[in-house]
Amino acid sequence: MSLPLKKVLELSPNQQALPIVQDLIARREQLQVAVHLVSGATVIDCGINAPGGWEAGVVFASICLGGLAQVKMHWADFGGLRWPAVEVVTDHPIRACLASQYAGWFIKKDKFSAMGSGPGRAVAHTEELFAKLGYEDPSPVAILCLESRKLPTEAAVDLIVEKCGCEPSNVYILVAPTASPAGSVQIAARAVETGLHKLMALGYDLGAIESGWGICPIPPVAAGDLSALGRTNDAVLYGATVHYNLRDDDEKLASLIGQIPSLASRDYGELFGKLFKQYGNFYDIDPLLFSPAEVWLSNIQSGRSFHAGSVRRDLLTSSFGLEP
Amino acid sequence: MSLPLKKVLELSPNQQALPIVQDLIARREQLQVAVHLVSGATVIDCGINAPGGWEAGVVFASICLGGLAQVKMHWADFGGLRWPAVEVVTDHPIRACLASQYAGWFIKKDKFSAMGSGPGRAVAHTEELFAKLGYEDPSPVAILCLESRKLPTEAAVDLIVEKCGCEPSNVYILVAPTASPAGSVQIAARAVETGLHKLMALGYDLGAIESGWGICPIPPVAAGDLSALGRTNDAVLYGATVHYNLRDDDEKLASLIGQIPSLASRDYGELFGKLFKQYGNFYDIDPLLFSPAEVWLSNIQSGRSFHAGSVRRDLLTSSFGLEP
Amino acid sequence: MSLPLKKVLELSPNQQALPIVQDLIARREQLQVAVHLVSGATVIDCGINAPGGWEAGVVFASICLGGLAQVKMHWADFGGLRWPAVEVVTDHPIRACLASQYAGWFIKKDKFSAMGSGPGRAVAHTEELFAKLGYEDPSPVAILCLESRKLPTEAAVDLIVEKCGCEPSNVYILVAPTASPAGSVQIAARAVETGLHKLMALGYDLGAIESGWGICPIPPVAAGDLSALGRTNDAVLYGATVHYNLRDDDEKLASLIGQIPSLASRDYGELFGKLFKQYGNFYDIDPLLFSPAEVWLSNIQSGRSFHAGSVRRDLLTSSFGLEP
Repeated sequence: MSLPLKKVLELSPNQQALPIVQDLIARREQLQVAVHLVSGATVIDCGINAPGGWEAGVVFASICLGGLAQVKMHWADFGGLRWPAVEVVTDHPIRACLASQYAGWFIKKDKFSAMGSGPGRAVAHTEELFAKLGYEDPSPVAILCLESRKLPTEAAVDLIVEKCGCEPSNVYILVAPTASPAGSVQIAARAVETGLHKLMALGYDLGAIESGWGICPIPPVAAGDLSALGRTNDAVLYGATVHYNLRDDDEKLASLIGQIPSLASRDYGELFGKLFKQYGNFYDIDPLLFSPAEVWLSNIQSGRSFHAGSVRRDLLTSSFGLEP
Repeated sequence: MSLPLKKVLELSPNQQALPIVQDLIARREQLQVAVHLVSGATVIDCGINAPGGWEAGVVFASICLGGLAQVKMHWADFGGLRWPAVEVVTDHPIRACLASQYAGWFIKKDKFSAMGSGPGRAVAHTEELFAKLGYEDPSPVAILCLESRKLPTEAAVDLIVEKCGCEPSNVYILVAPTASPAGSVQIAARAVETGLHKLMALGYDLGAIESGWGICPIPPVAAGDLSALGRTNDAVLYGATVHYNLRDDDEKLASLIGQIPSLASRDYGELFGKLFKQYGNFYDIDPLLFSPAEVWLSNIQSGRSFHAGSVRRDLLTSSFGLEP
Repeated sequence: MSLPLKKVLELSPNQQALPIVQDLIARREQLQVAVHLVSGATVIDCGINAPGGWEAGVVFASICLGGLAQVKMHWADFGGLRWPAVEVVTDHPIRACLASQYAGWFIKKDKFSAMGSGPGRAVAHTEELFAKLGYEDPSPVAILCLESRKLPTEAAVDLIVEKCGCEPSNVYILVAPTASPAGSVQIAARAVETGLHKLMALGYDLGAIESGWGICPIPPVAAGDLSALGRTNDAVLYGATVHYNLRDDDEKLASLIGQIPSLASRDYGELFGKLFKQYGNFYDIDPLLFSPAEVWLSNIQSGRSFHAGSVRRDLLTSSFGLEP
């Protein structure tokens, strides 16, 4: 006789993240976030008019990962640079990272636009990605995360509510600007996700991946959002190390590993900000650049591990404005 | 006037671990474990038919330590190898490590056999160790941990229940194979315990030891249990560092320290798997080999610390299958 | 419409720390602390007659920081020395560190004397510092932390209760000696606070500082309190690294940074114990020495970071008694 699985909507990332959202709201004074009701939905400002902070960033990241990962901060070493880091460990890499954390929903309504991430995406499932993953979350609660300098307008909230098909009172929207402490943490917490996305771009079958573990330096808050966009990208591209447990053939992994880290890209070695200026826009930068600096694949089937890439202290120091 | 100590059966490791077991059961979907009732006892599969994972391994280790230690995972450095690690800190080293975590109960019934660890051992107290320690736990609840590829049979569960003398409904048995994510974590979490066991083998009076703190790399899951047995041993022997606070004479510690780490053994420097093949069985390997790679003793009485051993990146890399 | 801030007495550090104190009392057997009622107040012995431990030290530090910081222990690297460390992260640096954690209240009654720290100081607000900070905590509950080898006498408790103006039953006093595991941890947890105090001593406007993050090696417990006083100071002066997020002008920060770490002092490079002997008392040691070994200032306004100082493994090894 076996106890039945407690089916929380088949481990819904929205249901898993909801208590963390409720805790964030209860601790809003300590975490320095502001809670607004916009068109009946709950909008939580984690760094626009409210200050937010490091800890708000950790909570933001935990929610964005659908409550299916551990997120913690600690001082670490990056090629000789001792610097604050954020670490993410998940035994649910696809659900936590791709179905939830990946910033794949471009939300645009009138003058408001922002990239949407978080588990609410799997409720709306407007992106092609969900067909690809064969996954959606039938949760009546939807939790979305926005990287934005502005709070979403009523019209933008209405759009989100409509696409999610939830009661407005069951919709939660967290917002943090790129250039904010919470923004720095929650973006640096995307290393495992970035590596998975790169693997998907390489045509790899993500079903083989059982767990993900990543560490990334937390970029110091930049003076503006464009500069912060550069730094937060550089933190992953030149500072992050990720580890995946998977089941596959050694031969395939041996030929794959070298293509995964950022160094496999033609644009490797330049700071994101410079590339952005050089190309004039985001979309001409080589999409294969977007990957962690260093990758480990551990094949549970064979017991062998594969490694490529390395942390670039020189580029981190330059990107982060740490030079004297 | 002083508040009385809240005597939880004199700090029973079984009572301390029980809420963690209950939480594991409640979060079984998230932690990917399966809960079975076998002969009236609760058996929790953490990696046989259920996948388990890193986080299940941390919970397994916390329970195995009788809830009397902190267990956490983070990326660390091992002689230049940056690799995921598990850390254990305890202010109850004897009760948490020897009376609970040590895998000292060989459970055999018909065709089922497994090494038993966890606080339930102190309820059954069938091992000589408990007479030596002068300790047993009169808890009506017993929690046992098995390293096994198979779930315990009804007859094996009956044996455990009988030896513990508890109601079957008060007996909890966690199981994880050596070659599984939870297995990798929970075995790597045994560095502090391994050092204490070595000290006991050297005839040292463990009563002098007040706390233990250890860090050990988490070996990547091996292809099979025998190979995993090698790696998990090598992780401790060549990768773990432990620190003990104790009260003793400096002279005694100065002459003791060099004997504690694995390097004091005639078999030091060979991977466990090779030794196992060479000797043909486990019991001819030098028992003094089983100890952490690096040991610190801090004498609270004198304020001096003693150190021996070092992390062997070369052997870790080879054992873990990290070579290109 | 916005949800009102849940004004916990304007984020009272005493109110924030109270549940942590209650948890410490409930877990007193596990954390090895003893709870006494003295003159109607609750006195918690974390290392005098009760053993305390590493974990009691983390709880002590969390309480001392007014529940407004994260405190955690993990193994880290200090210039090549791998050693247990304590890390503190706070988004409320002034309230947590200066208004609470700073040991600024000299409590003396008859033969009992001790330096008082913790959020209760902001209730009593007897120190000039509070006028300077323009802050006091009108909490009806007061929580104080003492570094002392003796439990406070009834008369000393009466004095504390009177100065706080609280009901005795609402006053909690934690005590740990310098030379104790809890003492080692809670003092090493003062790196962020020490850096802020140094900045204040340099006349810097602390209002500019938004967050603090520090890491410090935990000194091994010394044989006596005087020797422990030396080690715990050396741990910060020669082992701690701190990071502050702030808003200011780059020019000002560029000229300030070199003055912050301990190396800016004429007494830099000598162990505290030697200086103490040399000068014959505490107050002739250069006050500017008291600062972390290494300091980062990250200017959110400009995005630039400023750095000075470095970890001195040689001095740590010598101070901590780690030499062979």
